[in-house]
Formats: sequence, structure tokens, C-alpha cells
Amino acid sequence: MSDTATTTRRARGGGGAARRAARTAVSFDTAKYIERNIPNFELLSDEALSIIEENAETLLEEVGVAFVDSPESLERWKAAGASVDGERVRIPRGLARKLCSTAPSKFTQHARNPERNVEIGGNTLVTAPVYGPPFVRDKDGGRRYATMDDFVKFVKLGYMSKWLHHSGGTVCEPTDVPVNKRHLDMLLTHMLYSDKPFMGSVTEPSRAQDSVEMCEILFGKEFVQENTVMTSLININSPMTFDPIMMGALEVYAKNNQACIISPFIVGGAMAPVSVMGTLTQVLAEVMAGIAYSQIIRPGAPVIFGTFVTSIDMNSGAPTFGTPEASQILYGAGQLARRMGLPFRSGGGLCASKLPDAQAAYETANTLNAALMGGVNFMLHSCGWLEGGLVASFEKFVMDADQLGTLHKMAAGVAHDENAQAMGAIREVGPGGHYLGCDHTQENFKSAFWKSDVFDYRPFETWDEDGAKDTQYLASQRVTKMLSDYQQPQINPEIKTALEAYVAEKKASMPDAFM
Amino acid sequence: MSDTATTTRRARGGGGAARRAARTAVSFDTAKYIERNIPNFELLSDEALSIIEENAETLLEEVGVAFVDSPESLERWKAAGASVDGERVRIPRGLARKLCSTAPSKFTQHARNPERNVEIGGNTLVTAPVYGPPFVRDKDGGRRYATMDDFVKFVKLGYMSKWLHHSGGTVCEPTDVPVNKRHLDMLLTHMLYSDKPFMGSVTEPSRAQDSVEMCEILFGKEFVQENTVMTSLININSPMTFDPIMMGALEVYAKNNQACIISPFIVGGAMAPVSVMGTLTQVLAEVMAGIAYSQIIRPGAPVIFGTFVTSIDMNSGAPTFGTPEASQILYGAGQLARRMGLPFRSGGGLCASKLPDAQAAYETANTLNAALMGGVNFMLHSCGWLEGGLVASFEKFVMDADQLGTLHKMAAGVAHDENAQAMGAIREVGPGGHYLGCDHTQENFKSAFWKSDVFDYRPFETWDEDGAKDTQYLASQRVTKMLSDYQQPQINPEIKTALEAYVAEKKASMPDAFM
Repeated sequence: MSDTATTTRRARGGGGAARRAARTAVSFDTAKYIERNIPNFELLSDEALSIIEENAETLLEEVGVAFVDSPESLERWKAAGASVDGERVRIPRGLARKLCSTAPSKFTQHARNPERNVEIGGNTLVTAPVYGPPFVRDKDGGRRYATMDDFVKFVKLGYMSKWLHHSGGTVCEPTDVPVNKRHLDMLLTHMLYSDKPFMGSVTEPSRAQDSVEMCEILFGKEFVQENTVMTSLININSPMTFDPIMMGALEVYAKNNQACIISPFIVGGAMAPVSVMGTLTQVLAEVMAGIAYSQIIRPGAPVIFGTFVTSIDMNSGAPTFGTPEASQILYGAGQLARRMGLPFRSGGGLCASKLPDAQAAYETANTLNAALMGGVNFMLHSCGWLEGGLVASFEKFVMDADQLGTLHKMAAGVAHDENAQAMGAIREVGPGGHYLGCDHTQENFKSAFWKSDVFDYRPFETWDEDGAKDTQYLASQRVTKMLSDYQQPQINPEIKTALEAYVAEKKASMPDAFM
Repeated sequence: MSDTATTTRRARGGGGAARRAARTAVSFDTAKYIERNIPNFELLSDEALSIIEENAETLLEEVGVAFVDSPESLERWKAAGASVDGERVRIPRGLARKLCSTAPSKFTQHARNPERNVEIGGNTLVTAPVYGPPFVRDKDGGRRYATMDDFVKFVKLGYMSKWLHHSGGTVCEPTDVPVNKRHLDMLLTHMLYSDKPFMGSVTEPSRAQDSVEMCEILFGKEFVQENTVMTSLININSPMTFDPIMMGALEVYAKNNQACIISPFIVGGAMAPVSVMGTLTQVLAEVMAGIAYSQIIRPGAPVIFGTFVTSIDMNSGAPTFGTPEASQILYGAGQLARRMGLPFRSGGGLCASKLPDAQAAYETANTLNAALMGGVNFMLHSCGWLEGGLVASFEKFVMDADQLGTLHKMAAGVAHDENAQAMGAIREVGPGGHYLGCDHTQENFKSAFWKSDVFDYRPFETWDEDGAKDTQYLASQRVTKMLSDYQQPQINPEIKTALEAYVAEKKASMPDAFM
């Protein structure tokens, strides 16, 4: 987390070359991560938050959490002062919070292009794409299993998306590559097809180790030891269970000073109580246990307080998104994270809809708005999420990525300097006049109003004569255009060769596995 | 605004009969107006708000407002202490605010069914449908001029919509009825096809008078003198111009103690400066002048601080909706209204899209979320708005009306009593367990999670086999179902006859006019 390491890395990662290339290329800016200049929305009272904190301590102390199939974890907990009974770890009141206190409140995740570095924590919001879908969907091809070809396209779209700060991780599961090898191809794609920050593999501790080693090639070994270059997603098996694979990956990353999101994944009413307060209590207990464990591994390791909670249709058991309860939990969890002084992950363009239609957009917008106002620092699934996360949608990717622009403008707050007050303009125009031609308008209109790059603002007649296209169609056209405009960021050829050799060697060293 | 007049009116309006009918009918509840149990989002600092207030006073004093073609208005302003020069009214610093102080901070709008009465002001939010579109659209019929038949259908849908508290006004313009007579048919439809509160006509002072007279038949003459039974929309011709037709209607309503929304209608960059601060300053000056005038007419007349502002695509000049600047203005105007202690109108399901597609839903959800968090008390255009307000969409009406349910649940806040804390459930289930079957879930699941009545939550396979329908299709089915389930609320037959006779007589008294 050094602030001065930028220069060293620039030479290795080829950032300078990338910038030179960008100047001659089709224009595709990336906006800086969001720094909020607006208040957070504090939904819960201090009283309610204190009750949750008290109850979470009670749960940790009396019920405890399970660290399964991991005698080493249990030994570590014992040494740290917890009471261990079988696989159950009971944590005395106050201990988890004390252990969590060594985690940094904010950290820098470095990208190979230092202009793409992101700060995670405090008043920032970093946007990353959808994570995990086994399927993809587009307008012409419909829904189908995701492949490596799809994965590459999504990374290209992410690189080209102005309001997206992060390349993400498993943007879709490349199901045509063996399970035990696909992390190598995915990481290589993030490294070569984008220069934005990315996530590491968590599906086996050995794959986390591979991720670290590839970063050592890309960034330099010393740089990786001193700086955070990956943020990876460690899910908790709610309720209150930590499995050895995820914990093994966490151990690799924490030891190497790499960031982890410690995140319950909860379908409300199934993996947590049906009430918002009960869910928040369980979330806090789980996150505190997970983050405390990360700090036992390496005090000071960067972590993020994660919360992924959906509500449920109690008639069918189907998960639901963009609902008020999900927003309430997001707001409450954000407050709890801030009270701990930790970066917060939640939100995203979440939806249950099977199509990138009105349902998808209502659900998505509800969640994006809550994420902005609720103080989210790292927003996974910011774009492309469809069908409860089963599907990565090409059209929804660009639709959502476009909407992320509204969050940037909202977060900037409202200027109130003399130019913004515009008293001269109002005097000049006067009652019954028109502002379009006045000097103040001419001087300010370019940055005055956010404008979608996807939506159609034309008059009805023009739009109708042009085929009366809906948003999905317009987004599909934009996907095609962006992929055809895409230009790969330059990289030091030696690093590229070394990365490719590493992947080839690793792949050759093991048989294919598809389960 | 008496709280005790309910009983009198119940007998006249037929509320008791309506309730008896409802018990035997298809179930269609109406939720009570929203009472927020959550904080408002305070976007602007006190410093910024004070600057706006100072600047607005400066505008009123130095630039002034125009009251055109209305010598009587000018006389009234002179008598109240303003300086009048031609049609320009300059209001000394502090005078407008002082005049506004007699307006109530909250009022009751009565419905003929007292269960449908709404409180407007303070922590409430009342939802009313789209207002004003000359066109309608539905999935099968496309876009076409609105007719009286469409109008009746919308009023029926509004009556059947659980989360909609208000029947609205010109839900669409019935273009097949002469301009000078359609207000009569529209009011009669609200009165006979719904028992929710409604709006009066503002297109001529005489039509406002007709609206009052019809209410006197429906509610009783004395009741109307003592109580507010209509909330009507008085637009200001921004910048800072008040026309004699709207002011004439305002005079009729204020004299009769009926409520008016005093509302700038602003396309940002055209009718106000391109900056948020400048727009808010102009909005405040305009609303203060309008509300001050209402209080000159009748101190204590109920009014609402209105703000309708869209941003603009500066390339094409097209209005845009659901944008960050529109939300910023909404938040700021809400703060200004609360500082004046006045009810606040803004928001709605606003969108620029020509179809009820993803664009429409993103734009709409952005605005609905801002309206809830920004403290809106009266939300016109809550449902059905399409294409910048040119079109009333049947499908979007039920889609938006469904989403209004999320606002109700969000506004209720988060319970933190013992049941909500759910500690017993978490202890019972424990690490690795499952909550679906536990007692706490069984006791609470019915009200735990909000659920859409329009969206599709089925698994992909089921949905796909059933034709892979999008939201517009599902909404269209719901429109058909609601119209076929519709049952007219009962009304005292004598009142019905009297209303019909009034309308027939009025219509016969004048020739048709279509301009």
C-alpha cells in the first residue's frame, strides 16, 4: 500500500505505452473511482445499530461459528483466545471486534496502468462487473452456457466502459475450459485485454496461489509483497459456516497482503431469519468472524465488509432482487461497516428478471440507488447481472454500465459557487425569457447534464421511422460497436511472454478436470 | 379541514355502501397513504440552502415576477405591499415568505369514501397517477390519441391499484370530447368510477368553478366550504411568469378552501439556468410568489410547494428524465419546502422512453427512489407516464403502480423489537442450518418480504416453456385482468342523478369547442 511505488510498476506493466496508444486510438476514457461529496443515508437509528452489535457479540460468544474440515483454523482460533468445541468456534465478547481493528479502513488496489488504481474505503465507490454466471445471454443468441470467447468479450466491454473502474473476476464461467485451468485463462485475459484492476481465483487455495504468482510476473514480486493488486471474493456459507476452500484461499491472499471481500451470501428466510434486524445481526457476526480470522493470519491485511442478501418470494422460494428489504439490509450493513471503520461491499445491478427488460431495470435501479446512498465502497455485479446471477447479459452489461454514470454525477454533489448560483443569467433572461442562448448556458452546458449513451431521446416520429427500437436492441448495437472499436492496451512484450509461458506450463502440469 | 366531518359525508357519498359492496367483491385493497418512518435525505448543506433563500429574495425584490393580463392581480399585489411596474411585480425582501406563512403545513384531502382520505404534508407521501398526456399506448393498439374510453379505463385501473392513493386529474386528455366540456366528463368519471380523492380542472377559471359545484353535489355544499376535497395543479410559466388562466383557477380554488399545487414546470437550460443551484433559486422565487398570491386571496388556503424539473439533452434539446440533475433538484427543493413548513410535490414515474422497456424503468425507478428519499408529499405522475409525458401507457400504469409498493415498505423503516431481532431463530438454526422451517419464519414470512404482482419470479425453464414473456406482456395481461375484475364502488343514486344532470345541463349550455 505504498503511495510511491507507481513509477516502478509503470515501467513493467507498460502503463506509459498504454497511454501513448490511447492517445492515438478510439476514445474510451475511464472515469476515476467515485469520491462521494454527499452524505450517506443513515436508515437505522443508533439504538437499533447498538442492539445489532450487542446481539452479534452474543451470537459469537454463545452460538459461535463453524470452521469445517480445517484443524489448522481451529488451532489458530484457540491461540487467539476463542473457545473451540469440535468445529465450533465460540468467540468471547469483544475479541472479534478487537481482532478486526487491525484491518485498514481504506486501501489502494493497484492496476497495471496506475491511472486505473482504485481507492477502496472511506467515501469512495468502485464499480466492478457481474461475477459468477454459468450462462450468458444476448439478443440474437439467446441464453447458453458461457465460454472463454464470451469471457474475453466481457473483459473487452469492461475495459471500454467509461463508468466501470474494475475488470472484475469471473465475469462469466468459461465452461468450455476445464475447471482446474480456467482461472489461468481468466486471469491472463484480465491482464492482457484490460489495464484495470481485477480479482483473483478463490475456487482452490492452489488457484489463489497461482493468481499471486501471475501477479508477481505482471507487477514484480516485490511490488506484490508491498502492495495490493487483487481484491478477491471470499463467501461465507451462511448461516455461520466457513468452509476450508474459501478459508484456504483467504489465507493465501491475506498472507500475501492481497485484499479479500469477506461476504455472507444470503437468501433471506433460508440462510438467515426473515427479518431485517435478524439478518443484519447474523451478517455482522459472520463478517466479524471472517475478518477477525483474516487478521489472525496477517494483521493489517486489507479486507472488505461484504453483504450480499436477497429477499425471497415466500410462495415459490425464488430469490427476489431490488426489493425494499434488500435495500434496508444494504443500508443497515453499510452503517455497521462504517461503525467498524471498514470498507463496505454490497449492491450491484441485481435483478431476478430473465430478460433485460423493464423488470430487470426497475430491480437494478433500485439496487444501484441504494448502493450509492448506502455508502458502498466496492460494488461487485455493477453491470451485466441477469436472472438472479445465473446469466451474464451482454445487453444488460452496457445498459447498466451506462447507468453507473448517474451515480458519478449524483455523488459529486451540488456546486454552490457564484457560477452555479447563476444570478447573472436569471437577471439577464428575466420573466418570460429563454435560457438556451444566454452566456451562462453556453459556458456551462457541456457538463451541465448527464446523458445516457444507450437510451433514445429522439422525438417519437424520428424514432418510429427508424424502426421503433427498444432498449435491448439499442444496447445490442452498442455491444457490437464497442467490440469493433476495442483496442488492446499495450503491455511489455516480455511480461506478456512470461505470463503466457506460466499459464501454458501450469496447464500442462495437470490433467483436465470438469468437476 | 375538520376532522369530524367524516360521518356527515359518509352518508352522502355512499362510503358505507361501497364498503359493504367491497366485502362481497373481488379483493382490491387500497393501502393507506405513506407515513415515513425513515429520515429524509438532506443533499444540500445549510449553507447552500441559505444562499438559495437569500438569492430568491433578491430575485423577487430586484427582478420580480410577471402577472400578465390580470389587472386585478396587480391591484392585489400593490395592496399587499409589492411594487408594481407594468405587469412586473417586485416583492420586497421578506414579504413573500411572510405571506406564505399562513399556508398550512399539512392538510386533509377528503374522498367520498372516508377510508380513502389522504393527509398531505409532514411525513406523508400520497401517490397520484400520470396527468396530461394527449396520447395513450398499449401493447396491442400502439400509440394513438387518447379518448374518453381510455380515460375511464385509467380511472378504473387507478381505483383497483393497491398502492395508489389518489385518482388524479387529467389521467389522459380525452381528445374525442370538446375541450370546453371534457372537464365535466373527467370529473364525473372520477366521482362515479372511483372513491379515491381527485383533482379539479384548471384550464379555465369557469371550469374550476364547475369542479367546485360538482363537488358540492357530491360532498354537500357546507362540507366543501369547510373541507378540502380537491387538489389541483397550477403551473407557473417559468421563468417567473404567471398567466391569467392558471391564476384565475387558483383564485377559484383558494377562495373555496380547495388545495392547489403551485408548481414551476421547467425544462432545465431552457426555462431555468443549466445549474442546479440556479434552478433551485428560480424555483423557490416562483413558488414563493405563487403561494404568497394564494394567501393574499385567502389566508390559510391549502397549497403545495411544487417542483417539476427535467434536464435536457443539450445536443438535441430533448428533455431527459431520471437523471442525476433532476434528482438533485428534487432533493434540494424538498429541503427548501421543509424549511418553509410546506407540503412538497415532485417526482413521479418520469421517463423519456417511448416504450415501457428498460430505459423507461431505469428512468422511472431513479425518480421514484429520489421522491421517497427526498420527502415528496404529493407525487403526481406516480404511474403510467411515458415519452416525456406525451403518452399514458396502460402497461406502464400497472408496472409503476406495482413498484409503488416498494416505497410503502421502505418508508415503514426497520422494526427492532424482540421479534425482529430473531435471536431465538438464529440460536435454533445454528451454523449450517436452514431457516425455512423454523417457527420464526413461519410466524413472519407473510409480511416479511415485498413481492411484485407483475414481475416473473419463476425458474427459467418454466418461464421459457410458457413463452418467455417480457414485462410489457405480463403487464398487459394484468391490465386486462384488472379491467375485467373491476367493480364500480356504490354511490347514493340521488347524488349520481344530480351529478349527471349537472353535467348534461352544463354541456347543453354551450357550443362544442375543440381549441
